Amino acid sequence: MENPDEVLFEENARLAMAGKPMIAKLGAFATDSGGHIPNLEIAYQTFGEFDGSNAILICHALTGTSNVPGWWDRLAGPGKPIDTGKYFVIGNNLLGGCQGSTGPSSLAPDGRIWGSRFPILTVEDQVRAQELLLHSLKIDGLHAVIGCSTGGFHALRWAQQHPIPVAKVAVTASGPRQNALQLALNEAGRQAIMRDPKWQGGDYPSDDPPKNGLAIARMIGHIAYLSGQALEQKFGRNPQGSSAGLSFDPEFAVESYLNYQGDKFNERFDANSYLHLTRSANFFDLQSLEGAGSEFIFISFASDTLYPPKLSEELMRMAISAGCKAEIAIIDQPYGHDSFLLDGEGQGSAIRAFIST
Amino acid sequence: MENPDEVLFEENARLAMAGKPMIAKLGAFATDSGGHIPNLEIAYQTFGEFDGSNAILICHALTGTSNVPGWWDRLAGPGKPIDTGKYFVIGNNLLGGCQGSTGPSSLAPDGRIWGSRFPILTVEDQVRAQELLLHSLKIDGLHAVIGCSTGGFHALRWAQQHPIPVAKVAVTASGPRQNALQLALNEAGRQAIMRDPKWQGGDYPSDDPPKNGLAIARMIGHIAYLSGQALEQKFGRNPQGSSAGLSFDPEFAVESYLNYQGDKFNERFDANSYLHLTRSANFFDLQSLEGAGSEFIFISFASDTLYPPKLSEELMRMAISAGCKAEIAIIDQPYGHDSFLLDGEGQGSAIRAFIST
Repeated sequence: MENPDEVLFEENARLAMAGKPMIAKLGAFATDSGGHIPNLEIAYQTFGEFDGSNAILICHALTGTSNVPGWWDRLAGPGKPIDTGKYFVIGNNLLGGCQGSTGPSSLAPDGRIWGSRFPILTVEDQVRAQELLLHSLKIDGLHAVIGCSTGGFHALRWAQQHPIPVAKVAVTASGPRQNALQLALNEAGRQAIMRDPKWQGGDYPSDDPPKNGLAIARMIGHIAYLSGQALEQKFGRNPQGSSAGLSFDPEFAVESYLNYQGDKFNERFDANSYLHLTRSANFFDLQSLEGAGSEFIFISFASDTLYPPKLSEELMRMAISAGCKAEIAIIDQPYGHDSFLLDGEGQGSAIRAFIST
Repeated sequence: MENPDEVLFEENARLAMAGKPMIAKLGAFATDSGGHIPNLEIAYQTFGEFDGSNAILICHALTGTSNVPGWWDRLAGPGKPIDTGKYFVIGNNLLGGCQGSTGPSSLAPDGRIWGSRFPILTVEDQVRAQELLLHSLKIDGLHAVIGCSTGGFHALRWAQQHPIPVAKVAVTASGPRQNALQLALNEAGRQAIMRDPKWQGGDYPSDDPPKNGLAIARMIGHIAYLSGQALEQKFGRNPQGSSAGLSFDPEFAVESYLNYQGDKFNERFDANSYLHLTRSANFFDLQSLEGAGSEFIFISFASDTLYPPKLSEELMRMAISAGCKAEIAIIDQPYGHDSFLLDGEGQGSAIRAFIST
């Protein structure tokens, strides 16, 4: 009798070739924290045709999705630097996320939302879940893994976790670990969520989540993503459209922007996923690239105060110490950390050249 | 018949000489926003002996008090750079504050807390309240005004608001206005307060305030005060004492620090005052020092990303354009914006020399 999961995997793989949003059902999963997920699901989408040796896995930043050309439109698509006319590009949603993959807002086996019962995750957990996804797609080697921001952590782990070999690893706007500023910003955001009475210890109903806490967390994030220089260039002290005069209502454009971004974020993101995805990133701490078998490129942006260029330089030293071929690109864009989303040219040409050689 | 207020002012002045925390009752006050405070009170403390020409007014940062040697112990006290053995040093709590002066947590004439009814303030309002305080103390000229951080805004206004002439103005860790980053950080902090359900539109009972919102606002503040470089030097990824393992509990020292600072802040500060004092600072926007009759010193710290040295350079250009004598000092301390509280040496010797010449 044929394994029913195998059939499902074949079916997944077939439909994925058509570019549709898919869910891979990957069975039981044990987390590093001792948690047990009996029914792991990972959302994915593929773009382009698989030729046996052209698969590229994309590792998204904190709040990304499997729809890579959607959130990374400067980089991925037909004819773009990550050319879906040439490569078989696999987008996926991280384990712990809320955009199709199993996460704290998913239903546990008892039919109730996981909520506070969802296990704390590590970056390594999330990479193992990605490996299971690739196994289900019958992909036993990757041309490249490309990770941006905290997705860079996953890409770095791919270079060292060997069940599926990876020829090239591109890490952009990231580093070997988070520094004190990033830990601090994440903690302030998590506390905004966990101190919102609607969080209810993590067991809030899906129709009454801690929206205000999540909005504050997102505002803190956006301040950090842009950084002082980019905030100043984009907003300065510009007033918002209609003056509220002397009041606490938004009077400056930057105030309107933050409130808008914070509230809008609630439409697409879950507060508990925010806790889990920031927390797994906090714990990641790469000390060496010994054992890595990939070729690397590390890309930074000069204006990124969250993941400054010196972190790419540290990764470069690690790669060289590990005997890996590696290159570095520091790109002069004024958008702070957000440059990795906005810069198609400098970052794009560096990635295009790196993966095509 | 003698004016009863005059008697009260004389009494205030006499007791203040003894160094005690005092409240000046200053009568009716109209705010720039059209508000009416029938019974303005300003908390103050004086240190040293008044000799007719040695009065120095100190303008505190966001959360300071009238007890200047308390919060600025590296700078003010007997034998210190602002030498209370030589000068008559006047500390005061800003209008809108919560440490003795009339603010939103004070009782309105109807015997209820002002709360949401408290008028929005400007820096100019707060300076006029300080002028009334000095009139009540029979001080008709100041040797110096010294302001730090947002207190620098008040010091700058003193140089241009002329009822009481000021010989010297020292502005440290400040600038001519807040930039987009500062506006953004303040807005995120205010939203954390105003989105806390316990805020209740500003009319919370004094024994059940929006503690969580205020704690988050303070965490955001502390991240900005230290900045990335100082956070990294102070905390890095150091673990806190006892490991919580893989959980959302504080695991890194910087996380414990932020939670401690946020919660502790509730013991001494009122959420509505936080809204008002940040808001008056947001609206301040100095375009020129024309009409100023003071000599200036502008002090910045190289590691201060909140009020970077280029803002002191802008103030320097304004002072020179206005025909004022002015000097600038950029001090190399690693504590970010907090340097103005922590640096007694560089800042201290600059201020000591400036006010003694």
